[in-house]
Amino acid sequence: MEVRVNLLPRLLNEEADVAVVIDVLRATSTMTAALHFGAKKIVPVLSVEEAKKYREDNFEVLTVGERGSKKIDGFDLGNSPRELSEEMIEGKELVITTTNGTVAVSKSKRARKVILASFLNLGSVVRLLKRESGRIELQCAGTDGDPSLEDTLLAGALVSQLEIGHINDSCRISSVLYEAVKDNLESFILENGVHAKRLVSLGFFEDVGFCAKINLYDLVPLWRDGGFVRG
Amino acid sequence: MEVRVNLLPRLLNEEADVAVVIDVLRATSTMTAALHFGAKKIVPVLSVEEAKKYREDNFEVLTVGERGSKKIDGFDLGNSPRELSEEMIEGKELVITTTNGTVAVSKSKRARKVILASFLNLGSVVRLLKRESGRIELQCAGTDGDPSLEDTLLAGALVSQLEIGHINDSCRISSVLYEAVKDNLESFILENGVHAKRLVSLGFFEDVGFCAKINLYDLVPLWRDGGFVRG
Repeated sequence: MEVRVNLLPRLLNEEADVAVVIDVLRATSTMTAALHFGAKKIVPVLSVEEAKKYREDNFEVLTVGERGSKKIDGFDLGNSPRELSEEMIEGKELVITTTNGTVAVSKSKRARKVILASFLNLGSVVRLLKRESGRIELQCAGTDGDPSLEDTLLAGALVSQLEIGHINDSCRISSVLYEAVKDNLESFILENGVHAKRLVSLGFFEDVGFCAKINLYDLVPLWRDGGFVRG
Repeated sequence: MEVRVNLLPRLLNEEADVAVVIDVLRATSTMTAALHFGAKKIVPVLSVEEAKKYREDNFEVLTVGERGSKKIDGFDLGNSPRELSEEMIEGKELVITTTNGTVAVSKSKRARKVILASFLNLGSVVRLLKRESGRIELQCAGTDGDPSLEDTLLAGALVSQLEIGHINDSCRISSVLYEAVKDNLESFILENGVHAKRLVSLGFFEDVGFCAKINLYDLVPLWRDGGFVRG
């Protein structure tokens, strides 16, 4: 078993045994929270048009997503885990489109198994990965084509806790980073992350703190038949 | 004045005020050493054929470079700073082609000023950059399309010592990494770097230690009229 960290998502094929998609702020945190609150399935799509079409073609679908970090006009929900509740979500199917996260999902789909990771479900993801074999690809979404601090930190946390062989240098880059700042994760991200600062400036201060919480939920979103379900 | 770290080289244009090309193992270390030993000019080219053509067309040119980390057949020198000496190099023009470093140079050429950095000339590069204004782009060569530990460490050392504004998260990723391991730089690179391990397996153990030496040379290679000269 060995791990590769991709600080930006690479296009994977069937040679990847497990793809772990990471978009801490906020797509994979939001999708993890949605499954915690009982969503039946979450379908990620690349465009606003695809999401609207999906809602038209299917029964009782909630539209979720953002552009420029803001809720999309006409959508039911933005890309915020804190907007969600059991009352709103339970038993529903969600279709979601975001700027970086759903792109990372799209590049990961051909792997043998595809899961989602956030700090919210870090422990559950580690437990699942320890039962796997072969090559694990940690697919950081990044922000607008540049590696992001918070995704690199989560990749580093996974590398640290997995204690398996490293395929590339980004494994060590991310794990040393995580070990250096793990005791002040939330404040480190808030003070230094470009994306975190942008979210704060748009009024999403509490989202950043929420997405830095570790092991709030005990579940792993798993790709099955075109969407993520509770694994 | 602000800085951006590119963990892999991005194609720059005239909006970049200073491009700092980084390929610690070993292209920018070798070119810095060559200018220290009195090379008149170093011309980086992308292919072996271009290097041979350049030697045919010019008087007294030494061919330098590697493919798969090994000296190229028919070339005068490999890509090793430890192969060089004043006797061999002084007053000569060099043409060089390497797997990653000369590609990073090629992507940086359109910046207003282009320089080379290695641990060997870290202090000189910092002093030069502190006198500049505008946007500095740290262009890490990486290894075969993946960020490399040693280039990220040098970028982090520059970010730490410059103490200026950060454009992207890779600034903080690299500076925290550097601060965490700077007291054991050589052993950290030897134990963890994919490229360093490959060099050791090919018999270049001492090259890795040499390229981790800080401030051995007091000069900055500067791009002028198609090649690097002592700035």
